[in-house]
Amino acid sequence: MNTNRLEAFSDGVMSVAITLLVLDIHVPQDPHHTLAHGLLEQWPTYAAYVISFLTIGIIWINHHAMLGRLRQADHSILILNLLLLMCIVLLPFATSMMSTYLKRSQGQHLAAAIYGAALLAMAITFSLLQRQILLRRATLLRDPLTGAERRRIFRRSASGIAPYVLATALAALTPYATLLVSGLLAGFYALPIASGT
Amino acid sequence: MNTNRLEAFSDGVMSVAITLLVLDIHVPQDPHHTLAHGLLEQWPTYAAYVISFLTIGIIWINHHAMLGRLRQADHSILILNLLLLMCIVLLPFATSMMSTYLKRSQGQHLAAAIYGAALLAMAITFSLLQRQILLRRATLLRDPLTGAERRRIFRRSASGIAPYVLATALAALTPYATLLVSGLLAGFYALPIASGT
Amino acid sequence: MNTNRLEAFSDGVMSVAITLLVLDIHVPQDPHHTLAHGLLEQWPTYAAYVISFLTIGIIWINHHAMLGRLRQADHSILILNLLLLMCIVLLPFATSMMSTYLKRSQGQHLAAAIYGAALLAMAITFSLLQRQILLRRATLLRDPLTGAERRRIFRRSASGIAPYVLATALAALTPYATLLVSGLLAGFYALPIASGT
Amino acid sequence: MNTNRLEAFSDGVMSVAITLLVLDIHVPQDPHHTLAHGLLEQWPTYAAYVISFLTIGIIWINHHAMLGRLRQADHSILILNLLLLMCIVLLPFATSMMSTYLKRSQGQHLAAAIYGAALLAMAITFSLLQRQILLRRATLLRDPLTGAERRRIFRRSASGIAPYVLATALAALTPYATLLVSGLLAGFYALPIASGT
Repeated sequence: MNTNRLEAFSDGVMSVAITLLVLDIHVPQDPHHTLAHGLLEQWPTYAAYVISFLTIGIIWINHHAMLGRLRQADHSILILNLLLLMCIVLLPFATSMMSTYLKRSQGQHLAAAIYGAALLAMAITFSLLQRQILLRRATLLRDPLTGAERRRIFRRSASGIAPYVLATALAALTPYATLLVSGLLAGFYALPIASGT
Repeated sequence: MNTNRLEAFSDGVMSVAITLLVLDIHVPQDPHHTLAHGLLEQWPTYAAYVISFLTIGIIWINHHAMLGRLRQADHSILILNLLLLMCIVLLPFATSMMSTYLKRSQGQHLAAAIYGAALLAMAITFSLLQRQILLRRATLLRDPLTGAERRRIFRRSASGIAPYVLATALAALTPYATLLVSGLLAGFYALPIASGT
Repeated sequence: MNTNRLEAFSDGVMSVAITLLVLDIHVPQDPHHTLAHGLLEQWPTYAAYVISFLTIGIIWINHHAMLGRLRQADHSILILNLLLLMCIVLLPFATSMMSTYLKRSQGQHLAAAIYGAALLAMAITFSLLQRQILLRRATLLRDPLTGAERRRIFRRSASGIAPYVLATALAALTPYATLLVSGLLAGFYALPIASGT
Repeated sequence: MNTNRLEAFSDGVMSVAITLLVLDIHVPQDPHHTLAHGLLEQWPTYAAYVISFLTIGIIWINHHAMLGRLRQADHSILILNLLLLMCIVLLPFATSMMSTYLKRSQGQHLAAAIYGAALLAMAITFSLLQRQILLRRATLLRDPLTGAERRRIFRRSASGIAPYVLATALAALTPYATLLVSGLLAGFYALPIASGT
């Protein structure tokens, strides 16, 4: 099976998931406060929107590069890709929960831990797919890569897991730490230096 | 009519339908319970999400293989494909009803039966489209296949109908049986052995 | 400008619009009635879902054929296509209003008239785009067609307008007539004879 | 990285965002008023829908032309494109807020200013991407363009910024001015003369 339609379906799912993030930003309707007050009150929503949008966008860029190396996909690649998409599609939910609970005095640690865990799950399934493609299905690659090159690319993917472990663990301290680490990661990956070229 | 745009439209519909599943997972808002309690309470939602996501994902993989055999599509194929998509798009609704009623003492059998029936309708329309392509429009195939090969592929598709009849019928006993059978089926089709290669 | 990306964007919009139709089917939540009663009560929702789904699906098939004749698109074609998409995207709203008001004693005529008018607007903008492509931008066609052929194809598109005028007008009598005519039209266009081949 | 999948992802995001606009048009449910009254009351929703739909549609057309000049994309182009998409995806929210507050006596200026600012942010990120492609990554262009041609195309993009500054500033006067200027701009860009060919 060639990879055109795999890319088209993945692009479709990621573009819908990234756009659904906007459904979490609600128009303030409280008649007892001004619109300005209502908009300022929900700043966690904007922060979470920007971080999740950039994170999905960067995953898309990396997904593009990952599948671009493939000539053909087999069943195992399709199923691992499906698991990755299943984690990405959960992000609008995790983002909404994070921004709803960030400023509360109950549930804020759990909400942040789940947000971090959702990003972590995305990083892990991404690395599993990367490993399957580079290390276990090297015969399906478009261009021959040496074992050293393949392991180097895989290690760079896998190195994205640790920071999300940190972001998840810091939720026990304060949910703001999870938000901060996730935001710094999204910002870092958006920098030219992170493109790995 | 060549099949590129048929695939693009089908990919679009399936990727939107699979992503809309996340809209059924609500952020717990009940002020009388902790977030942890609220999240645990709605476990049927997660189970139904995973099962429906995998099921649509696997239908997409099989749809890809089915249309990949076609060189051209005629009106009958377009209309049958539209009926298949109409069943797939109903799944977010059926999934939501299933997870809402699973633990209730009223409506739980009916909700599970409709969930099973929606999956069954998807399996039936898939097989009808497969039959139309392989047995009635064999001249539109990309590569010549012997009658025996075409009947074998069709029988494999049609064999996916019976388990969903079972899943639907078991709803009369308990909705958990419907969920279990649907989950086992999704898990089975995700295994390498089910790829039929 | 070649037509690949025009098709991709149109496919995207139509596939999202057709899938959003499912958001109008709500899980019955009324604690005073059984689920079966709640599901039966909302039968207009299912009827409207099926009719609108098939209608958008058939417009997609015809849109596919229309753009398939084009080699290149100019600004006027892009803008007319955008107007057509703007009408299609309104259908989930018009469908929801139709099914909400069908059985009420107030607003039902207006809701049906607007539903008919939305379908009519879709048929009119489709014909305007067809006319622009076939009669005013014939130099952009992929294969040369005689003036007679081009006028014949355009007339067939334009002939789809009259029935929707009827569907809209019948709303003054009873909304069921609008639903019936729209349903018969969707069913007719799904028949092999309507493919015009 | 070639631009096919960049276009596919951007098309996906823009087609979902443009279609989500319809979710802001609600079926009137107030039992104390007729449906006709309810529909007329929410005319700002229709105006905002049409303006935002056309604006996103025209951005799509221009985006298509912009990326069509590229042979390849680098990391900086991908990230700037992501920022543009992040602004576009905010439009359903800004549109909903604009139409909710337009006729109110509180918050209407702020809502209109934010609507104008969202359109402005879209125009600015579009111009930043245009500048990156034409002036800083000219080696990635498909066909060689002289520096004068490239600067001319960039200036035309950048000239779209000023009117949205005006639309935003006029919100201080009355939100209707913001709506009017945005509407005139969408209408102007839809005219043949605005295609720049």
